[in-house]
Amino acid sequence: MNDTPAIDYARYDHIRPIRWTGDALELLDQRKLPFIVEHVLCHDSDAVAEAIHALTVRGAPAIGIAAAWGVVLAAREVQADDGAAALQLLAPALERLNASRPTAVNLAWALARMRRALAVAGADWKQVAALEAQAIADEDLAANRLMGALGAALIAPGSGVLTHCNTGSLATAGFGTALGVIRAGVAQERIGRVFAGETRPWLQGARLTVWELQQDGIDATLIADSAAAHLMKTGAVQWVIVGADRICANGDTANKIGTYQLAIAARHHGVKFMVVAPSSTVDMGTAHGDEIEIEQRDPGELFGVGGVRTVAEGIAAWNPVFDVTPGELIDAIVTERGVILKPDLANMAAAFA
Amino acid sequence: MNDTPAIDYARYDHIRPIRWTGDALELLDQRKLPFIVEHVLCHDSDAVAEAIHALTVRGAPAIGIAAAWGVVLAAREVQADDGAAALQLLAPALERLNASRPTAVNLAWALARMRRALAVAGADWKQVAALEAQAIADEDLAANRLMGALGAALIAPGSGVLTHCNTGSLATAGFGTALGVIRAGVAQERIGRVFAGETRPWLQGARLTVWELQQDGIDATLIADSAAAHLMKTGAVQWVIVGADRICANGDTANKIGTYQLAIAARHHGVKFMVVAPSSTVDMGTAHGDEIEIEQRDPGELFGVGGVRTVAEGIAAWNPVFDVTPGELIDAIVTERGVILKPDLANMAAAFA
Repeated sequence: MNDTPAIDYARYDHIRPIRWTGDALELLDQRKLPFIVEHVLCHDSDAVAEAIHALTVRGAPAIGIAAAWGVVLAAREVQADDGAAALQLLAPALERLNASRPTAVNLAWALARMRRALAVAGADWKQVAALEAQAIADEDLAANRLMGALGAALIAPGSGVLTHCNTGSLATAGFGTALGVIRAGVAQERIGRVFAGETRPWLQGARLTVWELQQDGIDATLIADSAAAHLMKTGAVQWVIVGADRICANGDTANKIGTYQLAIAARHHGVKFMVVAPSSTVDMGTAHGDEIEIEQRDPGELFGVGGVRTVAEGIAAWNPVFDVTPGELIDAIVTERGVILKPDLANMAAAFA
Repeated sequence: MNDTPAIDYARYDHIRPIRWTGDALELLDQRKLPFIVEHVLCHDSDAVAEAIHALTVRGAPAIGIAAAWGVVLAAREVQADDGAAALQLLAPALERLNASRPTAVNLAWALARMRRALAVAGADWKQVAALEAQAIADEDLAANRLMGALGAALIAPGSGVLTHCNTGSLATAGFGTALGVIRAGVAQERIGRVFAGETRPWLQGARLTVWELQQDGIDATLIADSAAAHLMKTGAVQWVIVGADRICANGDTANKIGTYQLAIAARHHGVKFMVVAPSSTVDMGTAHGDEIEIEQRDPGELFGVGGVRTVAEGIAAWNPVFDVTPGELIDAIVTERGVILKPDLANMAAAFA
């Protein structure tokens, strides 16, 4: 389309959650945003694993990238003649990184990719590791820009969209997955209005997404997660656009808790539902959503906000932080390899087998 | 059923959000619960209107009762020979009370009932007003106990239930509407497990419902509002049980924001959906839900919790605090007049015309 406005990607380049300094990994501490912009330096791989577990860095693609740099940090403490020998010595560090979060497959994917690169590396294996980690980050950014264009092309001009959690620069190497589609859609004047759910309990939408879009000059309207169906009923949104932590062979998609509820409400209202994630999120080895381990976090995340307790002592809480949206409730899965409409076993296999 | 355990109602009598002292209205300040138990004394009707607006007292039946006592307070400042003459002088105060919250019909209902009583009262009209206000409160408590039994009878033994917002003693003259059914169901060993949604933005579920049930020794498990569909998928709940702020002639029901989303998810999973409210909540003069004014509250309610701001400055928010659940998504409406299964225009008319 000749009349589609070009996207000035540099405009979206100001937030970088992960930066390799040359001898340490610098993470933007996402627990403190939006009011405190503070960076944490990780000098060893255990610090990276702890930062992933503690949500200092979060977002499926971002934790994959951080883990890859964690391997580079682990490598500095090991002496070996080649990559294969190094891998033996790195096994405990790799295991700790892998165990830092259970649901997002990008973490295991990035570590597997680092393993593969090291397995065939020679004496320069430390340099190979650093180049591979940088490649993972660079490819993620490129994938996001491509997905932004592919996803935006599905959206009719003048549409309203609703997103959930944070899938932007903060969750990736830059530009974002679902938020990349929204950035592209706004730039191309396809998207007229953006709504973001708060995303309890961690408030990624309230703390991160609306702030991140504000940096771009994109006005997003915050809603309570439970106002989504009422919003859909008003006709204000035509697409729900979300990221993913793991996409199964049949299209079933694990994502932030609340995504499944949005998909049910979207289908009820005839609102379209788009999942945007790099192909590293696709896990063809997991047949369907029931096989995905859903991370349960501390019930205490539901007991208050920002250190202020709102719930009486002695109360029990159930705090799964992901859920699974069945493929049949998804209208489009967008990866950098293309768009899969109405994902199921057959068309997922055609794209990813 | 001879083997149904009797309910010891006195056990549930410890929380009273509204108490008439003889010359003032004492309200339990629900904004400060669960950590601060503090009462506010209203000495005039404007103080009552402000307390309703500010959510010092909340819950559809409770605000109706509070408004009735507000009329009694207004009456103390007026001299008139009979009730009809008094009503002329009371009109501004009645109007301010009526305007204090828009969505719950119980408020207008209670004021209309006070007007009707006064319209035919003689020289003792001030005493008539006080007796009528007390009758509204007493009848609410009796209705709740009856609804508890009627609603619980619908629930198969061993069921799990999910509730939303607070519909307990705090929201009524005592025992509660939806929470009354849950109390009765637990006492009768029909309900094995209770889940409560946080109920953003005001956190009535997190702050009030789980605390109120804890006082009774009923363990409720708190969940994020957006975890409800995932919970349903696990099979843990057989009924969603909620209150109502207005029930239309076709069964469409306005209730706390998020109720509609729960009803959609419940239908998707084959989970039953029960609305419990006194007949004063039924508004046969409103044909369907589109005619209901949905209260929009300060967007600031989404910007933080307990005085801690979590959202960047300059962000817009959309904060409707009610939504409408269509009658066709409701399996049972329980009032003190009986149970209406699959509510629609015809069977609502049969019960309430």
